[in-house]
Amino acid sequence: MIRPLFEVSTPEEVIKLLKNNLNFKKIIQNNKEVINIKNALYRILSKEIAAPVNLPGFNRSIMDGYAIRAEDSFGATDSLPSYLKIMGEIKMGNRPDFKINPGEAVKISTGGMLPEGANAVMMVEYTEQIDDTTIEARRSISPWENVVREDEDLKAGEIILTKGHKLRPQDIGVLAGIGKTNIKIYKKPKIAIISTGNEIISAESEPRIGQIRDINSYTLGACIEEAGGIPVYRGIIKDEVVLLEQEIKKTIKEDKVEVVIISGGSSVGVRDVTLEVLNRLGKPGVLIHGVSVKPGKPTILAIADNRPIFGLPGHPVSAMIIFDLFVRPLLSWLQGGQYNYNSAKEIEAELTCNMVSDSGREDYIRVFVNEKEKKFYAEPILGKSGLISTMVRASGLIKIGLNIEGVEKGSKVIVRLF
Amino acid sequence: MIRPLFEVSTPEEVIKLLKNNLNFKKIIQNNKEVINIKNALYRILSKEIAAPVNLPGFNRSIMDGYAIRAEDSFGATDSLPSYLKIMGEIKMGNRPDFKINPGEAVKISTGGMLPEGANAVMMVEYTEQIDDTTIEARRSISPWENVVREDEDLKAGEIILTKGHKLRPQDIGVLAGIGKTNIKIYKKPKIAIISTGNEIISAESEPRIGQIRDINSYTLGACIEEAGGIPVYRGIIKDEVVLLEQEIKKTIKEDKVEVVIISGGSSVGVRDVTLEVLNRLGKPGVLIHGVSVKPGKPTILAIADNRPIFGLPGHPVSAMIIFDLFVRPLLSWLQGGQYNYNSAKEIEAELTCNMVSDSGREDYIRVFVNEKEKKFYAEPILGKSGLISTMVRASGLIKIGLNIEGVEKGSKVIVRLF
Repeated sequence: MIRPLFEVSTPEEVIKLLKNNLNFKKIIQNNKEVINIKNALYRILSKEIAAPVNLPGFNRSIMDGYAIRAEDSFGATDSLPSYLKIMGEIKMGNRPDFKINPGEAVKISTGGMLPEGANAVMMVEYTEQIDDTTIEARRSISPWENVVREDEDLKAGEIILTKGHKLRPQDIGVLAGIGKTNIKIYKKPKIAIISTGNEIISAESEPRIGQIRDINSYTLGACIEEAGGIPVYRGIIKDEVVLLEQEIKKTIKEDKVEVVIISGGSSVGVRDVTLEVLNRLGKPGVLIHGVSVKPGKPTILAIADNRPIFGLPGHPVSAMIIFDLFVRPLLSWLQGGQYNYNSAKEIEAELTCNMVSDSGREDYIRVFVNEKEKKFYAEPILGKSGLISTMVRASGLIKIGLNIEGVEKGSKVIVRLF
Repeated sequence: MIRPLFEVSTPEEVIKLLKNNLNFKKIIQNNKEVINIKNALYRILSKEIAAPVNLPGFNRSIMDGYAIRAEDSFGATDSLPSYLKIMGEIKMGNRPDFKINPGEAVKISTGGMLPEGANAVMMVEYTEQIDDTTIEARRSISPWENVVREDEDLKAGEIILTKGHKLRPQDIGVLAGIGKTNIKIYKKPKIAIISTGNEIISAESEPRIGQIRDINSYTLGACIEEAGGIPVYRGIIKDEVVLLEQEIKKTIKEDKVEVVIISGGSSVGVRDVTLEVLNRLGKPGVLIHGVSVKPGKPTILAIADNRPIFGLPGHPVSAMIIFDLFVRPLLSWLQGGQYNYNSAKEIEAELTCNMVSDSGREDYIRVFVNEKEKKFYAEPILGKSGLISTMVRASGLIKIGLNIEGVEKGSKVIVRLF
């Protein structure tokens, strides 16, 4: 009756299978769009960006003071200042229409353009105006001191941002700086979420006793959003082969989703139905049935016509952990980006009790992090993987690796914070 | 002519002034809205949430097998099994309409409801069906083994999520689990961004030589979005008291912004204009003029009628650093949330060269992080704070504290990653 999950795969094997059996290039090549940089935070560039011109494009003062020839200040001190003739003032935003000659100075504000001949700015603090047309300069300054050279921020032709780069605030700033206000990026991938289980009802409904509201659609939807995807909520489907198959085909056709997640009851019936359907949808079919992760063992991965379909465990904690391990990196790749397993915030903490783990599987332990006298303590939250409240109480997860049999109280552990 | 920034404030003093001079309660009390939990990721609850009922609300199996009285399995082994009478099968999502008596068992799937009388589930792997109505049970199990008790996930009345809590995927899941699909949260605060500087033009325009495109509006807009606020882009205003004052009053009235950011040129003219305007807008007026942070010294903070108005430095790097130090925590408080200074991803790295810092100020050094043989190295990116490209090349920032005069090559430093 039950099919025991004898040949479980390691997380590493799952990632390898995903990478080897999917043609990412084909999926993403037509998934591009043009957007304004005001809407581009965390989006991923589908084309590298080069600087079209030098930035700032002119020699620019970064201080208030006088634009001079640095040579005219050499040797100047408080007791032996240089005397310079004031030739006028630079108007902000304008190209000066005169030249600075030896012994001359022109008043300039931060951001102003240096006139021809000038190669430094003497800060106003180091000058004294002694009459209408003369200043004393009381410091020796070097050529290009207090000046941003015309190509110091960016050189024309230089690659500023590479293809696959995820845009941070400063990246958006540099795009504004070169006038590239519309950019080409990868579209957000769409992921269908289908909940199964005859005991599951929608979150809006009132459960009869024996029924339970759908938690996973919401948890996974938020995880998808967090990972840069668009969740497509397909609701709850009864555990029948025909219904599930129809629903998957429908969401692929109607919603053009790149990934399908079936968040299954883990009951025998549901699992068997899911396996049968996933083997009928296209080649190569079911690749993984069972992973060496606790909680999360009853995980199914199929690929049909270059589209990954996950059967995630029904228990909410397991579903979240498996999402993090496999779906989250997949969503990065489907946006043409990299995935950095270390991108989550991690802290080191001291474990407050012994934790046992079976060798041959990765254990993910929910922990609450306490801070006492500037030290962090990770207190395991024990509880079945069906209890979403344990994830709510937890600050993060610790991982006990495949070949480690346990971690002792007092050990240092890395907590991956939520 | 210039007003030197002699009495600069420490970052700690700025935070204290913000906290002491703003009535946060008054600002946020009417800034609430109701939204669906599908749109609630990272939003902040304005009301605590209690469980209205027990979850799951019934004793629920977490395995496929047989619901039994645990007592009937006591002492059972492979060689000396217990014999139990099969009374039928539990239908998923239904309340069983019968009772289990001593010596009886009923088939149950994961997620099914235990019938009255049953207090444990014997996994199917440990049973053998010997005829139509009898199974052998080959393990001794404890009461409530493989069962989630009716109130094990949540107890009716229990506070699940507190006021001010920022919603993560699991929190949205637990809200779905109790049927709370619409929740009351704080509105996102609106922040106006006004760029000043007569040499600044919009990012869409083609600069004449001597002009420069507006970078800060975009960088700060993305930072505001990242911090959970809504940026209101007000464009570029010429450096004139009347124009700037009009613009600030207009955005407060029209856009109902809770904060105004003036991203100024740091030139004398602009700074004097900003100071004059900020002292005319309301009480208490300008509180800070200059902070002991490098880069970022020429920072202005005013409060007018319970509304913070920042004059951020014009240099893009400085503006971002000051935003992080003061505006980012402020935006958390304005959403009714906490602010955790440690919430950014940090790593430990080895500094690749000596860095000097003046005592009495906090230095923020841009660094590029290299990984070599599983060790991180932080390589300072030297460059003026006017160069946005330095932030693009940087992986993060390191901080040299107020009273530290430098950090030696080879020292361990904490890099706050972007």
